[in-house]
Amino acid sequence: MQSRYFTLNDHPKGLPTTDLFTLEHTDLTPLQEGEVRIRNTWLSVDPYMRGRMDGVTTYIEPFQLGQPLDGAAVGEIIESRDARLKVGDKVRHMGGWRDIAQLPAEQVEALPEFDVPDQAYLGVLGMPGTTAWVGLNIIAQMQEGDNVLVSAASGAVGSLAVQLAKAKGGTVVGIAGDQKKLDWLESIGVKAVSYKGKDAKQLSEDLKQACPEGFDVYYENVGGACLEAALNNLRVGARIAVCGMISRYNDEGPSSGPANLAMLLVRRARMEGFIVFEHWQHHNDFLNEVAPKIAKGEIDYQETVAEGLEQTPDAFLQLFSGKNQGKMLIKL
Amino acid sequence: MQSRYFTLNDHPKGLPTTDLFTLEHTDLTPLQEGEVRIRNTWLSVDPYMRGRMDGVTTYIEPFQLGQPLDGAAVGEIIESRDARLKVGDKVRHMGGWRDIAQLPAEQVEALPEFDVPDQAYLGVLGMPGTTAWVGLNIIAQMQEGDNVLVSAASGAVGSLAVQLAKAKGGTVVGIAGDQKKLDWLESIGVKAVSYKGKDAKQLSEDLKQACPEGFDVYYENVGGACLEAALNNLRVGARIAVCGMISRYNDEGPSSGPANLAMLLVRRARMEGFIVFEHWQHHNDFLNEVAPKIAKGEIDYQETVAEGLEQTPDAFLQLFSGKNQGKMLIKL
Repeated sequence: MQSRYFTLNDHPKGLPTTDLFTLEHTDLTPLQEGEVRIRNTWLSVDPYMRGRMDGVTTYIEPFQLGQPLDGAAVGEIIESRDARLKVGDKVRHMGGWRDIAQLPAEQVEALPEFDVPDQAYLGVLGMPGTTAWVGLNIIAQMQEGDNVLVSAASGAVGSLAVQLAKAKGGTVVGIAGDQKKLDWLESIGVKAVSYKGKDAKQLSEDLKQACPEGFDVYYENVGGACLEAALNNLRVGARIAVCGMISRYNDEGPSSGPANLAMLLVRRARMEGFIVFEHWQHHNDFLNEVAPKIAKGEIDYQETVAEGLEQTPDAFLQLFSGKNQGKMLIKL
Repeated sequence: MQSRYFTLNDHPKGLPTTDLFTLEHTDLTPLQEGEVRIRNTWLSVDPYMRGRMDGVTTYIEPFQLGQPLDGAAVGEIIESRDARLKVGDKVRHMGGWRDIAQLPAEQVEALPEFDVPDQAYLGVLGMPGTTAWVGLNIIAQMQEGDNVLVSAASGAVGSLAVQLAKAKGGTVVGIAGDQKKLDWLESIGVKAVSYKGKDAKQLSEDLKQACPEGFDVYYENVGGACLEAALNNLRVGARIAVCGMISRYNDEGPSSGPANLAMLLVRRARMEGFIVFEHWQHHNDFLNEVAPKIAKGEIDYQETVAEGLEQTPDAFLQLFSGKNQGKMLIKL
């Protein structure tokens, strides 16, 4: 049986292009004891993968040139040599960017039994959803009534973050670009602020207008002007959870940082970077809180779906052009 | 009886100059019930006072133009209409920038009875010392064996910070400018790194050489290139206590910030601003730990002393030229 998979043939400089990716195939070796074979049905592409393409170890191992890329995926067991998993079981694992995955069973997790679509475990109930929950609750220690600002607020992480924040009762402001995304935010009761065409000063004034009392929590997905504007609008004792700085991921050289970092001092604020994989012990708490709400339709989550393995690189690149709304997925 | 005091006659633009300060005098009103009159013997000037000269409220009320400036001072009661304090008592209070202070007794604190010079309560056992202790222990949660980096490491705050850090057993690196300051740091077992003539990249390389394993704690007094270089040398889980950013206090316009803030994410680090006055509940813990060591001569602290009330503005301005070593004081 063959597996088709993508490899990276060079380290991108700045924004990656599709010609950096090659679709290859290989004959799978016979299953070893303890291994399973999975037909993937959904693949995930995520912004953090960009960091793995530079060939340097940051908080996660870099992708190796010419080797199969990986990432989160959902699929169905088609062959098993492990007692814990049987043919037909639906599973989540990290053997993405390919159609057929073959892995040790211990690296594969059966999908929980909530009444939700399978692909939800890659988005709103997967790594992005857990990231939103951990950032707000563990890193920023969000309290009832907190005013919360979220950048990239209609993205896979941000769209859940704004809804979790709304449930705590304070003013929630989301920064986004496209009108469609702004409309969606307003439709769920979030004050939407566009960053388009604005420098940090203008954005700062618009945030002040949206929430004159300032923010207790800033959920940082973007960096750049958003961070500078947010720093100008912190309340005393504010907490900033730094989940990502996507505006910088494709920078070829260093750009300058916010000119107003001293606001951390003026507002006695805290800023903390985190990686969700290091807080995975909270995944079940997250799941038990959020999955029932997903099943009941109480949380609005969005997906952008590309069809076919061949579309994976394009889907990945769309993450950086802001074209996706909510979780970017590939359906096989 | 007359009191001589300084006033500010305009808000400084950039670095203040001596002509902004006016020495005035007034006849004191008779003491009211509950008030005391103090002959000041030592005055303190501190970098945070610069922020109070801009006429805007940050974390502390701004100085009013034409009104007596204030700040920490030590003196002796010369008249009292309060049962708690009697003539001859030595006290600490905020009626500085003047020779004779007249205050409600409740704003005046008798000096503790450790065997130390009076002026120590303005420096190594006063606000600067407490700032060093709170930043390391409460904000940065310093642990045994932590590698600690301190900027402005021979200043009033930094010089105690490096010694408290040394006592925890890890590698301690101090950033300073003048050779005399660097020599002092080396003499107490701190690795000294000069910032003079270096950009963030060079400083970053020098810090790496001084402590290749990176820092668990960065005690931030400076901002600018020091912060950028420190961000490049953090260990995973590092904590940055932001006590001040003196390199920016006299900037007329915003300068850009560090280009590498995303290191907070890569190293899952935390950066937190604090104001010592909000953590004053720890002052006695600090005093009980540090004052006996001062009395026994186990801590090396430095003072730069100007003589005479007239020297107060010049002494204040020297804080920004790096001329003082340790605590800047005025002896009356």
